[in-house]
Amino acid sequence: MIQVDVNTKQQSYPIRIGTGLLAKPENYAPLKANDKVMIVTNPTVAKHYLDTVTQALTQLGCQVDSVLLPDGEEYKTLESVNLIFTALLEKKHSRDSVIIALGGGVIGDMAGFAAASYQRGIRFMQIPTTLLAQVDSSVGGKTGVNHQLGKNMIGAFHQPIAVIIDTNTLYTLKKREFCSGLAEVIKYGAILDLPFFEWLEQNMADLMALKQTALQYCIQRCCQLKADIVAKDETEQGERALLNFGHTFGHAIESHLGYGQWLHGEAVAVGMLEAAVLSSLLGDLTQQDVARIEKLLIQAVLPTGSPETMQATDYLAYMQRDKKVIAGKLRLILLKQLGQAYISSDITQQQIIDSITHCSQSAITTYNANEC
Amino acid sequence: MIQVDVNTKQQSYPIRIGTGLLAKPENYAPLKANDKVMIVTNPTVAKHYLDTVTQALTQLGCQVDSVLLPDGEEYKTLESVNLIFTALLEKKHSRDSVIIALGGGVIGDMAGFAAASYQRGIRFMQIPTTLLAQVDSSVGGKTGVNHQLGKNMIGAFHQPIAVIIDTNTLYTLKKREFCSGLAEVIKYGAILDLPFFEWLEQNMADLMALKQTALQYCIQRCCQLKADIVAKDETEQGERALLNFGHTFGHAIESHLGYGQWLHGEAVAVGMLEAAVLSSLLGDLTQQDVARIEKLLIQAVLPTGSPETMQATDYLAYMQRDKKVIAGKLRLILLKQLGQAYISSDITQQQIIDSITHCSQSAITTYNANEC
Repeated sequence: MIQVDVNTKQQSYPIRIGTGLLAKPENYAPLKANDKVMIVTNPTVAKHYLDTVTQALTQLGCQVDSVLLPDGEEYKTLESVNLIFTALLEKKHSRDSVIIALGGGVIGDMAGFAAASYQRGIRFMQIPTTLLAQVDSSVGGKTGVNHQLGKNMIGAFHQPIAVIIDTNTLYTLKKREFCSGLAEVIKYGAILDLPFFEWLEQNMADLMALKQTALQYCIQRCCQLKADIVAKDETEQGERALLNFGHTFGHAIESHLGYGQWLHGEAVAVGMLEAAVLSSLLGDLTQQDVARIEKLLIQAVLPTGSPETMQATDYLAYMQRDKKVIAGKLRLILLKQLGQAYISSDITQQQIIDSITHCSQSAITTYNANEC
Repeated sequence: MIQVDVNTKQQSYPIRIGTGLLAKPENYAPLKANDKVMIVTNPTVAKHYLDTVTQALTQLGCQVDSVLLPDGEEYKTLESVNLIFTALLEKKHSRDSVIIALGGGVIGDMAGFAAASYQRGIRFMQIPTTLLAQVDSSVGGKTGVNHQLGKNMIGAFHQPIAVIIDTNTLYTLKKREFCSGLAEVIKYGAILDLPFFEWLEQNMADLMALKQTALQYCIQRCCQLKADIVAKDETEQGERALLNFGHTFGHAIESHLGYGQWLHGEAVAVGMLEAAVLSSLLGDLTQQDVARIEKLLIQAVLPTGSPETMQATDYLAYMQRDKKVIAGKLRLILLKQLGQAYISSDITQQQIIDSITHCSQSAITTYNANEC
């Protein structure tokens, strides 16, 4: 088992990474006998792992309840979070209870927000079962839900007490979901770590083949990079915003298509390429490096151009509503060079349109999500 | 104008207390020109003060939007908070916007929770217009909503950037609402400050007559007592729980009757007396001091016995569900003597029933909320 430590003002906690972790009670520390826990999951994940987790926790001496939420980004709503509150109250959970998120990013975000808000804040633990959640959303304490007028508009910063990443869960993950997670993996290399980007170029085949050594190193590296940033900037006042590389474009795609059409990572993949093209139009990133990013995305079976139904001008309205707008100015994360990102706030609408158009016209492949 | 400063880890902020504060732009500091604000209020309060506040903020150069929520404790729900999110998104408010709560405790709690959760936290300002909100709920950062299975079960600790208490607002407040606020005023004396309790015994007539000197001193003293406690224990790990004196019994009454029957302060008044009787049954508080509390409550036209439809045994189920239950044990705030409270966690169900029964049998008056 590999351990990465996250240190924040709110909470310091371990990320445990390895195979078969879920079956062993000792991996659930700091949970201990007589703790009362509520597992939040969905039917898909429950089928594979709820029994294993329940059994390990029961063995530890915990009192275990669970609640199943409907599966899918379209259910990442206040109404679903309210189902968690109802379950907690019906089972008389108090301030010393612990919520466990067992699932992907949607489950983690909702369970985390429920934990942040139930009785003004109780503890929670993350057991991410998708690659996306393992390398990104389960670490760092961002929790929340969508509003019909915008994604992730409601939420809280609430750090978990531990993150347990059992890489065996990736064997039951749909391939398309796995590839979506690779978008965030590629992001870390592009914005922060050129050697890791190069490692990905050399090891993408092993990752696609779910080889454990490659998977565990990859997840560890991403968690470490994220932990370092979160430690420095817990509530995204500055540097943490770099992690949003590709996300402002990507959220526009997700909003335009409606939740559940493209996966988050798919939209982010296109968004990263659009941001990379913009960086090259500004004279920072070389065209060769843009091509390296595109090649890696294609190796990960990710899209590299806008959805067919979306014009460059369609992006703008959604982007203006982004959380990263400050005093009416759109902030974008761009690349100075491969492995080095920065925050820009003086990009014109025309530059955004140019980069999207340029990106779509030069896309090597046309992506059809259903064929993935 | 009197100023009381609150210092917490999350935020330090001023409470400004005086007459006619709402009309003067400078009282809204740290708000400044070009700030974007969303005033959250209800139709009743809006009628009296929304124009005044909007005008002052516009004069300051702020961009002002407002949203009206339905009036009443029964609307203190996630659905109402969602109306605030919708208004914020429709008007394109971003992370640097400020929510202003203009109203009583219900508005303050919901606006504060919306501010804690919108885009994972934006600033907010409290303008409490009821005595209850002025002396209690607007100070200290407790925000939240009710769930159908329990009061204040969902929320966050989120400190305001300033609290503006214009005592003129008390002239438009219903007498019954004013008296409800006096319950919390009496609470401060009973649990923390014997001299203030004695001051109340001497000045209750002036308070009931809305004399400004008495009102302002009273509000200042309550805010100072609360600020001192909040500074020491922001998230209610210890001492802050003393402020819940009478509230565990009181919440049981509110839950039993359903929201909107008795006002919060009315339920707390009975709860305080029941807790005082319990303290005397334990041999701590003298019967004379119980009588002094009862007399003060009666002077403030507050109830002193359980609702007619509620038996002593009815309390228990509600009390078990209280947030202050830790590891299944009910914690109650009791009095060692007048002006000195403590947290007890070894009270039996029988003792609770005895004190409620004793209290109801010895009640001097039968209370009819509608006659107040």
